[in-house]
Amino acid sequence: MIYFDSAATTAPFASAIEAANRAFECFGNPSSLHSAGINAKMMLEGSRKTVAAALYCKPEEVIFTGGGSESNNQAIFGLAKLRIRRSKRIITTDSEHPSVANPLSRLESEGFEIIRIPTVGGALDIPFLENALKDGAAFVTVMLANNETGAKYDLAAVRRAIDRSGCGALLHCDAVQGFLKVKNPREISKYCDLASISAHKIGGIKGVGALYCKSGVKLQPLIFGGGQEKNLRSGTENVAGIAAFAAACEEFPKHLPHITALYERAVALLSEHPEKIKLNRPESHIDSILSISVKGIRSEVLLNTLDLKGICISAGSACSARRGPGAALTAYGLSKEDIDSTVRISFGAFNTLEEVEALVSALI
Amino acid sequence: MIYFDSAATTAPFASAIEAANRAFECFGNPSSLHSAGINAKMMLEGSRKTVAAALYCKPEEVIFTGGGSESNNQAIFGLAKLRIRRSKRIITTDSEHPSVANPLSRLESEGFEIIRIPTVGGALDIPFLENALKDGAAFVTVMLANNETGAKYDLAAVRRAIDRSGCGALLHCDAVQGFLKVKNPREISKYCDLASISAHKIGGIKGVGALYCKSGVKLQPLIFGGGQEKNLRSGTENVAGIAAFAAACEEFPKHLPHITALYERAVALLSEHPEKIKLNRPESHIDSILSISVKGIRSEVLLNTLDLKGICISAGSACSARRGPGAALTAYGLSKEDIDSTVRISFGAFNTLEEVEALVSALI
Repeated sequence: MIYFDSAATTAPFASAIEAANRAFECFGNPSSLHSAGINAKMMLEGSRKTVAAALYCKPEEVIFTGGGSESNNQAIFGLAKLRIRRSKRIITTDSEHPSVANPLSRLESEGFEIIRIPTVGGALDIPFLENALKDGAAFVTVMLANNETGAKYDLAAVRRAIDRSGCGALLHCDAVQGFLKVKNPREISKYCDLASISAHKIGGIKGVGALYCKSGVKLQPLIFGGGQEKNLRSGTENVAGIAAFAAACEEFPKHLPHITALYERAVALLSEHPEKIKLNRPESHIDSILSISVKGIRSEVLLNTLDLKGICISAGSACSARRGPGAALTAYGLSKEDIDSTVRISFGAFNTLEEVEALVSALI
Repeated sequence: MIYFDSAATTAPFASAIEAANRAFECFGNPSSLHSAGINAKMMLEGSRKTVAAALYCKPEEVIFTGGGSESNNQAIFGLAKLRIRRSKRIITTDSEHPSVANPLSRLESEGFEIIRIPTVGGALDIPFLENALKDGAAFVTVMLANNETGAKYDLAAVRRAIDRSGCGALLHCDAVQGFLKVKNPREISKYCDLASISAHKIGGIKGVGALYCKSGVKLQPLIFGGGQEKNLRSGTENVAGIAAFAAACEEFPKHLPHITALYERAVALLSEHPEKIKLNRPESHIDSILSISVKGIRSEVLLNTLDLKGICISAGSACSARRGPGAALTAYGLSKEDIDSTVRISFGAFNTLEEVEALVSALI
């Protein structure tokens, strides 16, 4: 099998699997006060330090969750509840993942005003944002990299616009696709007050995520109970999944130059066939996602044909797979016809240049 | 190490670890439409069938979550939001786990009326419940087995009281401690509309739970996004954790007679020392939890002394370990003095009769 769908999920690194298996042996509950509990707690806190290092933040700013979607929901609902008295306006983009877009639609139905910044060509409309900020906002939520086009959004510009407005809005970022894949890994904690990340997009295992929450930022919890994770995420900590997440945070960056090489090879080969392939390539992008439109072929036909040849790619994001591609392609500016023939190729650490060549020749 | 804290968390079964490792190989996203996704989806749905069989319910009635605490929060907030127009009264007990008690306190602060049934001696006060139901209720939430005393609550009597009242209240059960440990495993889905369970209490791994949700029962999701789990729990499914959960559901019941033997041996040995040990033993109980008060010794001193001898027990539940024992011991009717000297011994599949003897001689 040739797997080019690492934006949906990645194969876990051997190092992540080993970390999980070590944690299965160290099985205590981190809240228990005896040796078994203390050993588990030490493993948990060691993992937290590693994930914090990857985010360039303090360990106490990392809240482990059950995944990227939960992190996004926690950030959005948790901020909305506490900041509603300040403002009922929330600013976002028109191309967010459903785990950001859908909680915002829910808040919209409850009386919040949601303003969506256009992202034509994969770039944020910063003057639009500046204008929206004039009357203040509870918070702004903008993704780091788009899951359908790979567009890398400019968090520095968002931060500058917020600071210039003086409205005091907080900035949350859905960094699930961009984490460890952008050129400057420091920018998440440098520009954002909160950010969501997920383990299984970087070679960890499914069911674990984290929310970066800058010291001093207040949130209402989504899940109440035993008070784990500084009272923000009750429930026995997923020690094994978190240990695997930490291992993946250490390993993934080593593979980034290889992923860039895969991306560049694919772009070079596909560019030789402009009559058949249109590259939907934002100027600013991550190198793990490449969106293309294949002229005259519906994406699901292409996807199925490639699958029969043992090649896995996707039409849109996995989350929208059963409902057709999401809002991001429309927001990008593609025509209905182009959207119908758009597929996403996403690269991972395990792919080879030979696999890229096999994919391109199968596509052509 | 001798580990008698299986109510806090269990060592995973080898079969559960093997299932997780098989799933790490089958790493696709169950939402993806290609072969890798379909294989993961098949593994997920196979696991769902196994967990459903353990609950004696239909596979489509099992919603996988990030753990027991999340399941409890999902049930309580999800019901409260949709049923608020029917009634603002919720009936529970005075000895629930914090992941039930704390969401209810939050709802109380938002205007709900919370009525708490006394549980003196580990038994529900059914006339009190019947009286509380006279003016109707949005729902009732009662745990299956108490996490501090092992008391087994009478769900059949709760169901009868609700049905007789004719008020149409739904019944949710926090079955995290009782699942697969009660004598009649059918009673959860027979009497309840919703029930929360967790993998790591029965030899699965941490970070996975499920919510049994009877066909036709409507809930508002806690986490919005890609629409996984029938739109009730968005986020990429934790395929490996769920596969391990299913393996544990198949294996745990085989060990139940052994756990009963461990419990009975401990009771017999400890009963020989009435001058030193008071057994806090509810008439109806599960056999995996035994609460005792050790006369004249504070529980944390005992806990630490045993820990130095390599024996792990706990003072209360792990979730309340850092804040002293929870409400359940007070509700049970213990004096302040007894509570201060109460410890919980909880038995698991891996314990031996020799370990029980070593524990008792260390205690005495």
